[in-house]
Amino acid sequence: MVGQEILKVLAERKFPVEKVVPIASERSAGSTLPFNGSELKIQQLSEDAFDGIDIALFATSSDVSLIYAPIVAEKGALVIDLSSAWRMRDNVPLVVPEVNPEDLRHHEGIVANGNCCAIPLAVVLKPLHEKAGIERVLVSTYQSASGAGRALVTELEDQTKAIAEGSEPQVSVYPHQLAYNVVPGGWKPDDGGFNEEEVKIINETRKMLHLPGLRIVATCVRVPVPIGHGESVFVETRDPISAEEFRTLMSAAPGVVVEDDPEAKLYPTPNRVAGTDDVYVGRIRKDPSTARGLAMWLVSDNIRKGSALNAVQLAEQAIEMGVLRKEASQRHG
Amino acid sequence: MVGQEILKVLAERKFPVEKVVPIASERSAGSTLPFNGSELKIQQLSEDAFDGIDIALFATSSDVSLIYAPIVAEKGALVIDLSSAWRMRDNVPLVVPEVNPEDLRHHEGIVANGNCCAIPLAVVLKPLHEKAGIERVLVSTYQSASGAGRALVTELEDQTKAIAEGSEPQVSVYPHQLAYNVVPGGWKPDDGGFNEEEVKIINETRKMLHLPGLRIVATCVRVPVPIGHGESVFVETRDPISAEEFRTLMSAAPGVVVEDDPEAKLYPTPNRVAGTDDVYVGRIRKDPSTARGLAMWLVSDNIRKGSALNAVQLAEQAIEMGVLRKEASQRHG
Repeated sequence: MVGQEILKVLAERKFPVEKVVPIASERSAGSTLPFNGSELKIQQLSEDAFDGIDIALFATSSDVSLIYAPIVAEKGALVIDLSSAWRMRDNVPLVVPEVNPEDLRHHEGIVANGNCCAIPLAVVLKPLHEKAGIERVLVSTYQSASGAGRALVTELEDQTKAIAEGSEPQVSVYPHQLAYNVVPGGWKPDDGGFNEEEVKIINETRKMLHLPGLRIVATCVRVPVPIGHGESVFVETRDPISAEEFRTLMSAAPGVVVEDDPEAKLYPTPNRVAGTDDVYVGRIRKDPSTARGLAMWLVSDNIRKGSALNAVQLAEQAIEMGVLRKEASQRHG
Repeated sequence: MVGQEILKVLAERKFPVEKVVPIASERSAGSTLPFNGSELKIQQLSEDAFDGIDIALFATSSDVSLIYAPIVAEKGALVIDLSSAWRMRDNVPLVVPEVNPEDLRHHEGIVANGNCCAIPLAVVLKPLHEKAGIERVLVSTYQSASGAGRALVTELEDQTKAIAEGSEPQVSVYPHQLAYNVVPGGWKPDDGGFNEEEVKIINETRKMLHLPGLRIVATCVRVPVPIGHGESVFVETRDPISAEEFRTLMSAAPGVVVEDDPEAKLYPTPNRVAGTDDVYVGRIRKDPSTARGLAMWLVSDNIRKGSALNAVQLAEQAIEMGVLRKEASQRHG
């Protein structure tokens, strides 16, 4: 899903391409993908396929990325990797353009694109940290099926049809039925009862915000939604900030849209946010359970800002900063 | 939905009834409802309909309850009210049998049944408070359609069919499409950006636990699930308590089932909890973002423990304690 969305985003944003080469496994090689009105032939994954490439956007599993990213970087491309393989490495910047663009300068050939919940969270927390200092963050997620890939979206669709027909929904991709259900798991268990997804949100948010000691906790839940992740967030700040001040701050923040008028039934929902580029924030309230805290609700398209869009924005940022690999800069000098 | 579930629960639990009288508005009066193998004829709502009644279980709107509960209590019945009309009145006990049964003794004819998220939360927090002292609670809910009544369940079913058929889901009962979506609203706005549901959870949890100053905050979200409310909860305690100690505590707690083995993909989901009586707790973790805190996930059937079951348990408790109205006690003495 992410690979195809990358092509869509490149075309939409008129990304300055000379040539776009889709690369996939043997299974898909030879078939075509639409791009900007033409059809691109998918090349089979191999070292040679990356010859002459300046920017390689990797939307693969971590396993594939661990093997190929260093090889492709060695060949002179800037690898923008969307898997979790490289995100926490010290010599790999983990970048959200609205949050920590300067980190891009320190890449050694590989730049990591963050987790689909961590990216929107960091986009919202960054301006708040600059304004009032973030001391603690508590997140509960409402994550859509597409976060687990197309297979789970198809399973959700199949289960939805089964329910509509009154037959028994089949469960195979995910450990539990997702349609008509919410599932607080399905990710690989990690330390202390947390799962990999929760640990990613915790660690990546810290790295993106340059706050290695940030006190942060997350509980991740999968919901029967095709696209769009929601997050219920409580934040404690060092300095006091009112809901109104935060709303004003968010209204001016890059990549953020405030939708916050419950009287008018206006708050972000994944159904409406899917297909858009920004992080939507609503339900902004002063948290009465602490001296200096805020409660809020975020939604963003996990395939776009949480993934493909952010990766393309990183490529744009790298070009703008002139931090493509030396060889590439010389080629295009 | 709740009225019919009450009849089901009364039969299942072999509640000691002499006579059961279903009472409803003119629209339903005259039709019948199944009870324990027989059919009960629905009586039309009027003062006289309550003659000779010992226990009146009110599953009505707050408006109807505000008018009829005092009248029926005056006639000598103990009113167990499931609406929110009376819950926060000083002279009305708000009772969960596992939490504060003794409060039942102080009723003046009306006892209130709590909110469907506040009840399971209090069931879990009560033993924790006794063991370690609760200092702060942060809740994000995943609330099913049935919490808003049968009309929203039907709308969810209709929208699900529309999606399965590829047609446009119709939206009328709820402010936004619920199928394939999550909605952080639909409740009436209240103070400070909070909505009525969030304020209920905050105030009722305090009242049930006898902790009027409890620091507690909630964000409520509706999810496309027919029955079963989920809650992602973070708790800060006065004394340290490990995840393992809390798991042991919960395993022994009345009305609680621990389902907490993520390695075995075991955690509560509404799909499996629907139709059961207990509050299910899982995803129990030490919260690393605070000195003494826990993270957890609860699910309970909002129509049963969150509503009909708790109300019938209150009736059982009232009989056991001998706190039915004097007239009723005399009649049956």
